[in-house]
Amino acid sequence: MNKQALIDTRRRISPFVHNTPVFTSHLLDDLAGAKLSFKCENFQKMGAFKMRGATNAIMQLSKDQQERGVVTHSSGNFAQALSLAARNLGVTAYIVMPNNAPKVKKDAVLGYGGLITLCEPTIKAREQAAANLVAEKGATFIHPSNDLNVILGNATVAMELLEVHPDLNFLISPVGGGGLIAGTALAAHYFAPQCLVIGGEPMAVDDAFRSLQSGQIETNLTTHTIADGLRTQLGDINFPILQQHLDHIIRVEEDDIVSAMRLIWERLKIVVEPSSAVAFAAVLKNKAYFKDKKVGIILSGGNVDLDTLKFS
Amino acid sequence: MNKQALIDTRRRISPFVHNTPVFTSHLLDDLAGAKLSFKCENFQKMGAFKMRGATNAIMQLSKDQQERGVVTHSSGNFAQALSLAARNLGVTAYIVMPNNAPKVKKDAVLGYGGLITLCEPTIKAREQAAANLVAEKGATFIHPSNDLNVILGNATVAMELLEVHPDLNFLISPVGGGGLIAGTALAAHYFAPQCLVIGGEPMAVDDAFRSLQSGQIETNLTTHTIADGLRTQLGDINFPILQQHLDHIIRVEEDDIVSAMRLIWERLKIVVEPSSAVAFAAVLKNKAYFKDKKVGIILSGGNVDLDTLKFS
Repeated sequence: MNKQALIDTRRRISPFVHNTPVFTSHLLDDLAGAKLSFKCENFQKMGAFKMRGATNAIMQLSKDQQERGVVTHSSGNFAQALSLAARNLGVTAYIVMPNNAPKVKKDAVLGYGGLITLCEPTIKAREQAAANLVAEKGATFIHPSNDLNVILGNATVAMELLEVHPDLNFLISPVGGGGLIAGTALAAHYFAPQCLVIGGEPMAVDDAFRSLQSGQIETNLTTHTIADGLRTQLGDINFPILQQHLDHIIRVEEDDIVSAMRLIWERLKIVVEPSSAVAFAAVLKNKAYFKDKKVGIILSGGNVDLDTLKFS
Repeated sequence: MNKQALIDTRRRISPFVHNTPVFTSHLLDDLAGAKLSFKCENFQKMGAFKMRGATNAIMQLSKDQQERGVVTHSSGNFAQALSLAARNLGVTAYIVMPNNAPKVKKDAVLGYGGLITLCEPTIKAREQAAANLVAEKGATFIHPSNDLNVILGNATVAMELLEVHPDLNFLISPVGGGGLIAGTALAAHYFAPQCLVIGGEPMAVDDAFRSLQSGQIETNLTTHTIADGLRTQLGDINFPILQQHLDHIIRVEEDDIVSAMRLIWERLKIVVEPSSAVAFAAVLKNKAYFKDKKVGIILSGGNVDLDTLKFS
């Protein structure tokens, strides 16, 4: 891992991803008492930053590996990201999904050309189904967050933001499986050493916060958070990066997340998913700490189910 | 009225308004069978195009008039637009609102520095209250849509869009009080004579459609549309412009509006108000007519009440 690897990654994937816009708002600055820059990955292709890591991971495979396809298990954004990234690169994507996954998520994967294998909704069943595809098709398994090439791809979010605002005091991104925050931490380490990287995590699934305290990867006892992209846990590849380069994690309550999401929708006029609002919620909860600082906030994605959305 | 008046207007107001971005989507292009360019006035200051007309109307007053303030009656976007535009220009804005206006709308006006006068929720009461302010304060009444300087300010939306996409075949904007569509029609007339201008109007409040048929200004019998910005009727200043320069109006049902709004939220990942979706709904309802054409769609604003929002 070195600075050049990040530069190479950005050059590699740039034809296949958007350099997403950075939004600002005087009103939200006044509210937070800080100078905020929002990196809008909700406008990324397929609607989330995961397009970056998926693209990079596939591009780093050998021609031979690419011909045999890629496989992952996910019912969320990574399933869609791998499907679209694979299609863009002429590669077959096999997606293992639980048989109780919402139709809208299955349709999205199919729309991007992914081939779905349904399984029972247990971790064991989905790992078995993925292993079968690896064995039968010779496909390469790609983990949504605990994969170095995925992490490097995700690092390009912060690289782009730091290119526009090189003098940020803080960079904040949500913490789920650890792939985005690890990439963010690497980008700041190499391109903005003055910039502290902070994670935002829902209190209800604070495995990463506890992992950093205990020094070992902790698990979540429940998944009861509206931030459905953050229910997963860290892995052995991203955890050491966080131990080395992350300053700390701020935990937020469910009400904080909904309030922050509402402010983003109402004031920035953009659609972001609950997971995206966690980083902004962390700033609003610690105004004194961020007072008058330049803060980069990564809005990770914008895929929401409008049918179930309720703000009150 | 001439081309130079539009050019002067744009130069005059440009320090006080955003040149809003133009969004595109391959997915929505495929769905519509046309090449769509969305002009995003939801990102305009205070969240709607009305900021443009309000700013221009105030700037065209004499110094003496400006010192005595401006007045309007509105419970919607124009009340906020006039308040903010006035504050930006150091002018006092008196806003007449019905006493049953939602608190969120009153708070928005107050937040932009407008001085509210409450009245009974009848047309007669609000006209009387506005007349009183004109008499007492010497303030100048500014109509939200039936005012030439407001129309010229609104024309800058289409001017900006045509600067980016000069070769549009069609320009479509929603029709309410007629201020936006009249400005759009003037802009196309002077800057893109090849471009036909079309209005989108809810079937439930199709006064403008009927006015163009009958040759006189018609009224609405009900205001039963989700597109709350379009319940008003044309005026004697904008109607002749529409008679001369508008190609035709497409009427859409309530379901069409909600579906179009949903597509914009889900695919463009932006928050637009129902009125904004009417123009896109008109395209989706007439796919054969717009097939393979370059279509500019004006998204008029993004001020929605998330508490009452429901897609299903």
